[in-house]
Amino acid sequence: MKTEIISIGDEILIGQTVNTNATWMGQELAKIGIKNNRTSTISDSYEDIIESLKLAESRSDLVLITGGLGPTKDDITKRVLCDYFDTELELNKEVLEEIKTFFAFRNKPFLKSNEMQAMLPKSCTVLPNKMGTASGMWFERNGKVFVSMPGVPYEMKHLMETGVFPKIKEQFKLQELAHRTILTHGIGESYLAEIIEDWETRLRSSELDMAYLPSPGLVKLRVTSYKNDMELVDKFCEELYPIIPEYIFGEGIITMQETLANLLKEKNTTISLAESCTGGFASHLLTKTPGSSSFYEGSIICYSYDIKEKELNVPKSILLENGAVSEQVVEILSEEVRKKYNTDYSIAISGIAGPTGGTPDKPVGTVWISVSSRTQVVSKRFSFGNNRERNISQSALAGFNMLRQLILNEK
Amino acid sequence: MKTEIISIGDEILIGQTVNTNATWMGQELAKIGIKNNRTSTISDSYEDIIESLKLAESRSDLVLITGGLGPTKDDITKRVLCDYFDTELELNKEVLEEIKTFFAFRNKPFLKSNEMQAMLPKSCTVLPNKMGTASGMWFERNGKVFVSMPGVPYEMKHLMETGVFPKIKEQFKLQELAHRTILTHGIGESYLAEIIEDWETRLRSSELDMAYLPSPGLVKLRVTSYKNDMELVDKFCEELYPIIPEYIFGEGIITMQETLANLLKEKNTTISLAESCTGGFASHLLTKTPGSSSFYEGSIICYSYDIKEKELNVPKSILLENGAVSEQVVEILSEEVRKKYNTDYSIAISGIAGPTGGTPDKPVGTVWISVSSRTQVVSKRFSFGNNRERNISQSALAGFNMLRQLILNEK
Repeated sequence: MKTEIISIGDEILIGQTVNTNATWMGQELAKIGIKNNRTSTISDSYEDIIESLKLAESRSDLVLITGGLGPTKDDITKRVLCDYFDTELELNKEVLEEIKTFFAFRNKPFLKSNEMQAMLPKSCTVLPNKMGTASGMWFERNGKVFVSMPGVPYEMKHLMETGVFPKIKEQFKLQELAHRTILTHGIGESYLAEIIEDWETRLRSSELDMAYLPSPGLVKLRVTSYKNDMELVDKFCEELYPIIPEYIFGEGIITMQETLANLLKEKNTTISLAESCTGGFASHLLTKTPGSSSFYEGSIICYSYDIKEKELNVPKSILLENGAVSEQVVEILSEEVRKKYNTDYSIAISGIAGPTGGTPDKPVGTVWISVSSRTQVVSKRFSFGNNRERNISQSALAGFNMLRQLILNEK
Repeated sequence: MKTEIISIGDEILIGQTVNTNATWMGQELAKIGIKNNRTSTISDSYEDIIESLKLAESRSDLVLITGGLGPTKDDITKRVLCDYFDTELELNKEVLEEIKTFFAFRNKPFLKSNEMQAMLPKSCTVLPNKMGTASGMWFERNGKVFVSMPGVPYEMKHLMETGVFPKIKEQFKLQELAHRTILTHGIGESYLAEIIEDWETRLRSSELDMAYLPSPGLVKLRVTSYKNDMELVDKFCEELYPIIPEYIFGEGIITMQETLANLLKEKNTTISLAESCTGGFASHLLTKTPGSSSFYEGSIICYSYDIKEKELNVPKSILLENGAVSEQVVEILSEEVRKKYNTDYSIAISGIAGPTGGTPDKPVGTVWISVSSRTQVVSKRFSFGNNRERNISQSALAGFNMLRQLILNEK
C-alpha cells in the first residue's frame, strides 16, 4: 500500500510555517503500520494542485491532503478538488447548522464567507470537524482514497483521529505490527547506543527493528516487529530494563511530567515549585495536561533576587556569597515553597539559561535543582548546553525526574 | 525561474525528524527573491530518487537536494546522482586531505568508510564543506542546476551560505521581491477578510499579492510585490493601519510577547503576573527570550483557591460568591501581585481551560483577564474554545495585548 501526503500552502514553501503536520501524520501512520512514501509541499496554485493530484493518483493508494480550505480568497483547494473529481459544490445543511452553532457558541456573528464553508463537493464523504469550520472530505476513485483536510494542526489532528484513521482501518487491509517504545532520560543517543550495543545486535539479528528517537532531554527507543511478533518484542524489551535501569522512566507516549503526575495522584499528594531560570515552563508542563489541579497547588517564579529574598526567605548573605545558582539557594527555595504552599513535595530550579550570564566557574548551562519532601531534600548540579530554550526544557525534565526518583525511593 | 527542494530521508517521512531544512531554505531563498515552488520529501530509494530528479528536471531550473550523503550503507544519493548525470566517482585528493585534517583536529581515527567521502562524481563542481565530511555537489545540464548537500542542518546551512548562494547569484538573474508582514491579534481570519475586503481587492488589482497566515491567536498578513515595488507595498501597508488599528500589534517576525517586552524595556518598567489557568505559560513566554530579567520580576501561579486566598489576599467570600473565574477575583489578583512584587505593571489570568470544569454560565473557554498599572486596572472576559492548550496560549497572548494597549494609552 503506497501512501503520500500533499501539503498545500505558500507559507510552508517560503518557510514562514514549519510543516509539522507532515511530521505528525508520518508518525501516526507508522503507528498503524502504514509507511508514508512521499510528502510534497506545493503552492496554492490551481495547476500545481491538479498536477500533484494526478501524480499521486498514478503512484499511491492513499493520499492525505492538508491546507487551502480556509474561507479567504487565496484558498482554492475545494474548487480544484471539484474539478479533479468531476463534481460540484452543494450546500450541506447539516454542516451549515454545525457552523452556525460553532459561531453562536463563541458569541460571534455568522458571516456570508462562513456559509461558503458549508458548500461541499457532492461526490465526497464529509468528515465532521468539531474544532473548526472546514470539513474533511473523503474521495474514492478506483479503489484509491484522497482525503482533504484543513491545515490548522489541531483541526487536522482532530479529523485524522475521529474520521480518517477509523475509515482507513476499515478500507485497507493493514499489516498489524507489534511494537513497544521505551522512554529514557539523562543519557545521549550515542552513549546509549554504546551501552546497549550487544543487545541491539542480537535484536537486529532476530528480525526486529529498532529506532532511536531523540528529542531534547529524552531518547525514545522504538522496538518493532513487522511480523507482529509481540512475544519477541516483549522478550527484548524486558531484557533491556536490567541493562539501563537508571535511564528508563516509562513506555509508550507518556511524557516525563505525566509519569510524575501519575505518581503524585496515586499517592494522593501535592506539589509546588519555585522556578527561577525555567521562568514558569516547568509549571506549564505540569498544568498543560487536564486534571492537574488534583496534585498541583501553585508556584512562585522567583526571577529576581528580591523575590527569592522576600517571598522565599533566602538570606541576602547566602545569595551574595553563593550566588542564586547554588546548592544552598535551591535547597532553601525548595524547602520554603513547599512549606509556604503546604504541599507534600516541591521542585526548585535555578540556573544560567544563557546565552549570557555565564562565568568561568558557572558557565551558561549550569543549573542547580533541588527536590524536597516532608522528610528529605536532594539537590544536584547539571551542566547542559549553550541553547537557552533547550536549557529551560532540559532543566524542567531533570527536575521532574529527580522528584520521580525521590518518590520511588520512598516506597 | 522555478525552484524546488528535494529532501531525502525515511526519518523525515515517518516523522522522526521535522524537515526544518526545507523551512530554512525556503526563507533564505525568499530573501534573495527566489520563490520555492515545491518541496518533495522522498525515501532513500534508488527508484524514488531517480523519479524525483526526472520530474524536477522537467519543471524546474534550480533543484536543491539534501540528505543521503552519510557514510553508512543506507545513504545512496551519490551513486544515484552518478547514474543520473552519466558520470562516475573519482577520488578527490584535496577533499581527502581535508577530511583527514578534519579527523586529526578532532582526535578521531580516520576510518576506511570516511575515505569514501572523498569519492566524488567527476562531472560535478565540488563545494567544500568545512563543517563535516560530505562535500556539496553542483551539477549543471542544459542551463539547469542541481545541488546535492548533506542533511545535517548546520552543514547544509554552511554549504548554502559559502557555496550555493554565491553561485546562484552568479548564475541566475534574480528578481528581487518587496514584502512586508503585518501582524494582527484578536480577530479571526474570516472577520479580518471581511473588514479589509475593499482594501484587499484594490491591492490584488494593483499587482500585489497578499496572504493570510493564521496561527493560534494571530493572523499575519503578508503583502508582496514580485516586481520589487517597495513603494507600492508601503502605500498599501500604510493604508491598512487606519482600517484595523486595534488589531495590528507589529510587523515582521516579532512575537506578541516581544512587542510587550520592548515597550516595558523602552519605559524602563517592570512586570509581574498572577496566573491561574495558564499555569506558568504566560511567564514562560516572557522569559524564554534572553534579557527578560531586565523587566520581568516574577509570578505567582495561584492554581488553588488556597493560594489565591493566602498569598494574594482574595477574600474567601468573594471567591465563594463569584467563583475564581470572575472580574472581581482577577482584579484583586492583578492588583495584589503588582503590589507584592513591587512592579509597575501586572497581568492576572483566571479561566476554565477545559476540557472539563465548565458550567452553563461559564463554559469551558471562559477566561477573565485583568491588567493593572500603578494608576488603573482594566479587566475583560473572553470566550475561547474547547481546546485546553489553545485556551492557555490564547489567554497568554490576550493578556499581553491588553497590557500593551494599556501602556500605549498611557503615553
